[in-house]
Amino acid sequence: MYNKFCKKQLWECSKELSAVAMGRIPAETVIINAKLVNVCTKEIMENTDVAIHSGRIALVGDAKHCIGEGTKVIDAKGQYIAPGMLDGHIHIESSMLSAGEYAKAVIPHGTVGIYYDPHEICNVLGKSGVDLMVKDAERTPLKAMLTVPSCVPAVPGFEDSGAVVTSDDIREQMKDDFCVGLGEMMNFPGITNSVEETHAITDETLKAGKIITGHYSIPETGMGLNAYIASGVRCCHESTRAEDALAKMRLGMYAMMREGSAWHDLAEVSKAITEHEVDSRFAVLISDDTHPFTLMEQGHLDHIVRRAMQEGIDPITAVQMVTINCAQCFQMDHELGSITPGKCADIIFIDDLKSFQITKVIIDGDVVAENRKMLQEFAPFTYPEFAMNTMHVGETITADTFKVKTDKKDQVTIRAIEIIPARVSDYERHVTMAVKDGCIESDTKQDVLKTFVFERHNNTGKHGVGFVKGFNIKCGAMASTVAHDAHNLLVIGTNDEDMALAANTLIACGGGMCVVQNGEVLGCVELPLAGLMNTKSNEEMSELVESLTKAWVKIGCNIVSPFMTMALIPLACLPELRLTDRGLVDCTKFCFSDLEVEE
Amino acid sequence: MYNKFCKKQLWECSKELSAVAMGRIPAETVIINAKLVNVCTKEIMENTDVAIHSGRIALVGDAKHCIGEGTKVIDAKGQYIAPGMLDGHIHIESSMLSAGEYAKAVIPHGTVGIYYDPHEICNVLGKSGVDLMVKDAERTPLKAMLTVPSCVPAVPGFEDSGAVVTSDDIREQMKDDFCVGLGEMMNFPGITNSVEETHAITDETLKAGKIITGHYSIPETGMGLNAYIASGVRCCHESTRAEDALAKMRLGMYAMMREGSAWHDLAEVSKAITEHEVDSRFAVLISDDTHPFTLMEQGHLDHIVRRAMQEGIDPITAVQMVTINCAQCFQMDHELGSITPGKCADIIFIDDLKSFQITKVIIDGDVVAENRKMLQEFAPFTYPEFAMNTMHVGETITADTFKVKTDKKDQVTIRAIEIIPARVSDYERHVTMAVKDGCIESDTKQDVLKTFVFERHNNTGKHGVGFVKGFNIKCGAMASTVAHDAHNLLVIGTNDEDMALAANTLIACGGGMCVVQNGEVLGCVELPLAGLMNTKSNEEMSELVESLTKAWVKIGCNIVSPFMTMALIPLACLPELRLTDRGLVDCTKFCFSDLEVEE
Repeated sequence: MYNKFCKKQLWECSKELSAVAMGRIPAETVIINAKLVNVCTKEIMENTDVAIHSGRIALVGDAKHCIGEGTKVIDAKGQYIAPGMLDGHIHIESSMLSAGEYAKAVIPHGTVGIYYDPHEICNVLGKSGVDLMVKDAERTPLKAMLTVPSCVPAVPGFEDSGAVVTSDDIREQMKDDFCVGLGEMMNFPGITNSVEETHAITDETLKAGKIITGHYSIPETGMGLNAYIASGVRCCHESTRAEDALAKMRLGMYAMMREGSAWHDLAEVSKAITEHEVDSRFAVLISDDTHPFTLMEQGHLDHIVRRAMQEGIDPITAVQMVTINCAQCFQMDHELGSITPGKCADIIFIDDLKSFQITKVIIDGDVVAENRKMLQEFAPFTYPEFAMNTMHVGETITADTFKVKTDKKDQVTIRAIEIIPARVSDYERHVTMAVKDGCIESDTKQDVLKTFVFERHNNTGKHGVGFVKGFNIKCGAMASTVAHDAHNLLVIGTNDEDMALAANTLIACGGGMCVVQNGEVLGCVELPLAGLMNTKSNEEMSELVESLTKAWVKIGCNIVSPFMTMALIPLACLPELRLTDRGLVDCTKFCFSDLEVEE
Repeated sequence: MYNKFCKKQLWECSKELSAVAMGRIPAETVIINAKLVNVCTKEIMENTDVAIHSGRIALVGDAKHCIGEGTKVIDAKGQYIAPGMLDGHIHIESSMLSAGEYAKAVIPHGTVGIYYDPHEICNVLGKSGVDLMVKDAERTPLKAMLTVPSCVPAVPGFEDSGAVVTSDDIREQMKDDFCVGLGEMMNFPGITNSVEETHAITDETLKAGKIITGHYSIPETGMGLNAYIASGVRCCHESTRAEDALAKMRLGMYAMMREGSAWHDLAEVSKAITEHEVDSRFAVLISDDTHPFTLMEQGHLDHIVRRAMQEGIDPITAVQMVTINCAQCFQMDHELGSITPGKCADIIFIDDLKSFQITKVIIDGDVVAENRKMLQEFAPFTYPEFAMNTMHVGETITADTFKVKTDKKDQVTIRAIEIIPARVSDYERHVTMAVKDGCIESDTKQDVLKTFVFERHNNTGKHGVGFVKGFNIKCGAMASTVAHDAHNLLVIGTNDEDMALAANTLIACGGGMCVVQNGEVLGCVELPLAGLMNTKSNEEMSELVESLTKAWVKIGCNIVSPFMTMALIPLACLPELRLTDRGLVDCTKFCFSDLEVEE
């Protein structure tokens, strides 16, 4: 596959590489005295040199003859070197960072390439938003490989997003050389039900010779999973049980094992490797969603490799899972994923295989990071006005807006969404609530809170109403414009005044996440870029998010990354019950549900 | 990569496959009760069904719900099933069979796909010859995947072939959808020396996003091998030592381990797997050159898998080496190489993993062979006149033609080519010969025989003269138009009369191989198709070749497949000394050599 993620195409420099390997011209850079993690043969090769030229690897082995005048010699001093790590499935937006700042945050942790699906910004701004992210990323050394958002809106007919992606759009976008495939095809029911337009989207990807990435989030591994894979879906990162990952690998699907900030699947899913004697070439480690604090404190793929090793996966296998296995999944192993001649010179230095601290990162032959610090500067990027001004709520929100009326007297049984901390799925619970003056109020004793989703893209004035259980908030409200996948304005609270303040705080600042209590804003992370991101650095964002997390604790919530769990409340492609701007959605039957349960 | 080697493209039938997997429409075929050799996870999966539709696999697992009216049910009765086998590097011409007859010969042995390099016919007829072979193969169920000949002539400037391939030709041919890559780049010195036109040929392949297949036949695994791989060459089948194969795999090159009729590399090369704890994903089994008798008596890839197991490679690993590893080498694993949903329904049935007898072969969902017999007929193919009439020798050959004159008196030291049975390389030997009447004669006591190569493509009247040692012929002559790679007319003999008869016998019949003695033709395999092949069946050709082999024995030669060893005498890309129509070539220095050694 032709791609633009390298300094020079191999055919532009094959003659020079050959001349360097033969010692006829000196290499630009030579790494000496390294222990090579050979992901091709699963071996450690002691005392290995690597000669680099034109951003690519010219020779691996003894490279003394490649050193000449002007050659930069890097003495690895016996450290390990491994191929630069690849994240096979990632949404940059979850980090709340712009693409450029995201690159700065992950490269020092050894990440050289990401397969990213910008479906959050696409839901808000459509292809214009995707293009902005591509342009922002292009300035950086990070190989940002686009998988075009496939499901915008996530579940058509159940929500209002800022954009719609059709199979015609996909056909056009597959022509871009920065596009390597299709983003996660969440609409697996559309695939298993042979829905024309859903298949048109995947079929256009196949016609272009590109990769379809998947999302099969149910524990069924029989006919449904077979139907999904038979349609050409090549990988899936939604396994939460070892048997699901194993079933996928057995069916020739790449099992992407996830360890994100809020979803910690590895403890279970890694057993597919550690408790079974299987060829692990179809296993890949990915992050999916990572927030700023995780990137600061734990890292990115380096952290996930450490986690895999903690779960008993041997170090070289774990490294294969973020290098060659991922490259083979995307059929880009001729460019990426191994330290072998002709490939992009993307190389990480590791102090020790056990502690797995990244000490140096080389991308396309250039040292871009050292000791967890970026060394390269790149030009600033300014997002245009339309991307920084995306709060288009078509109604004036006051405390009155949040009244939930009912015809019932005294009490009413309602459907509530019960969240599950650190899991993407939720439960539908039926709860009996008191009725006061013809209205249902939040009930902190039962931990059941009013929840509103306001359409914010086209001033339609639509909003959906529901109740959520599980956050344990005692007094206050939270709001977020990170509200998957349509990213409308989501508000939850114990009282109408705080809810109105939370909503209006975000409308005023262009979107973000905030926590309020008794008329005071306790924490606010402004995300003016599409209501999803900020162009501040990871350090700054990490601080802001930390102060927001403290505000969550202050109002009573102790779960991990509560804003990530909250953000999934409107995501109507995950079971069981969700709330969008159009109302409650039964995500097991894919139909709208009434708030009140008929007795 | 788009390709035409399937009944339907996946995007043409993904909706149907999904419907079959879900049980909404009945499968065309369902295999029940099989033991699946799972090459993805390296496991045997007991009691597995496979549902097939539109030539592709819809479901693997429990397929009861896929059986309906009209479904053909195949009860495997506990037999093993495995993906149809792929030969990663093969020259059809070595079988002496036309492409259609070759397909009939190998399919019953479980071969469903070949990556073939028709550089023999290309040397004789150029692209027209390649196109004929493509058309002949297209009628058959065999997936005949073209790797376009890269080195025609093999060593420019040292021989006269019937055609010349340039980088412009390669650029054009890469556009064909039946072309998956570049045929073996034998000109590794051109690559390692950064020669413009050689790199232009490989670079055009890279630009087209296709695979460069290699040929690195020297035991150097340092700078030269690195330079070669750095230029984008993805595989090589020329390792004869385990350490060469291992070095290639460590450098990310697919090590294709060869077991052909005359070259038996596996005994040595398989140690790269059996004596080292390595990931074997970069190891592939291939045949390269197989003659009709081997196909009849031993088989094709089934035989090679058995040989691999004899050498200690475990059965599932051996099967991976002819299925998924090969498919991944060519980045066609989304279509071929595993029994998983969406892939082409190419499935073989195996009685037992140890005896590895193929009992049934399914290609694109159709049962095409059973119990070593083809079940499918296909339309006849007639080669045009220009392909059946290729003997254009520009001189009248008589006994006098074979006089080898010298200015020396009494005796002279000459350079002789000493063959090595069952190996592709040879030695240069210096031999002292008697001079009689100003001429050097063949000397059967020293086993040193006159050898002539006549240009036969353009009536130039050129011929080269040399001597060969090692065939142990006592009286008689042999001739062949299979004479790599230019396929000129090669004649070896103990006396001039028999040599003239041998040469003229082949000129009369349009090319082939013959053995004569004392004015009698003892054996002749007519190969009128380009002087390389016959359109007869493998059974008939096998008999003819067997009778020729007997004729060889009758005149004194006992080595294995002597005609294959003989055919390499003009191949100036293999060490050490070769003879072309232009004269003796020193293949270590790539220069012409005099017949007589200066004292």
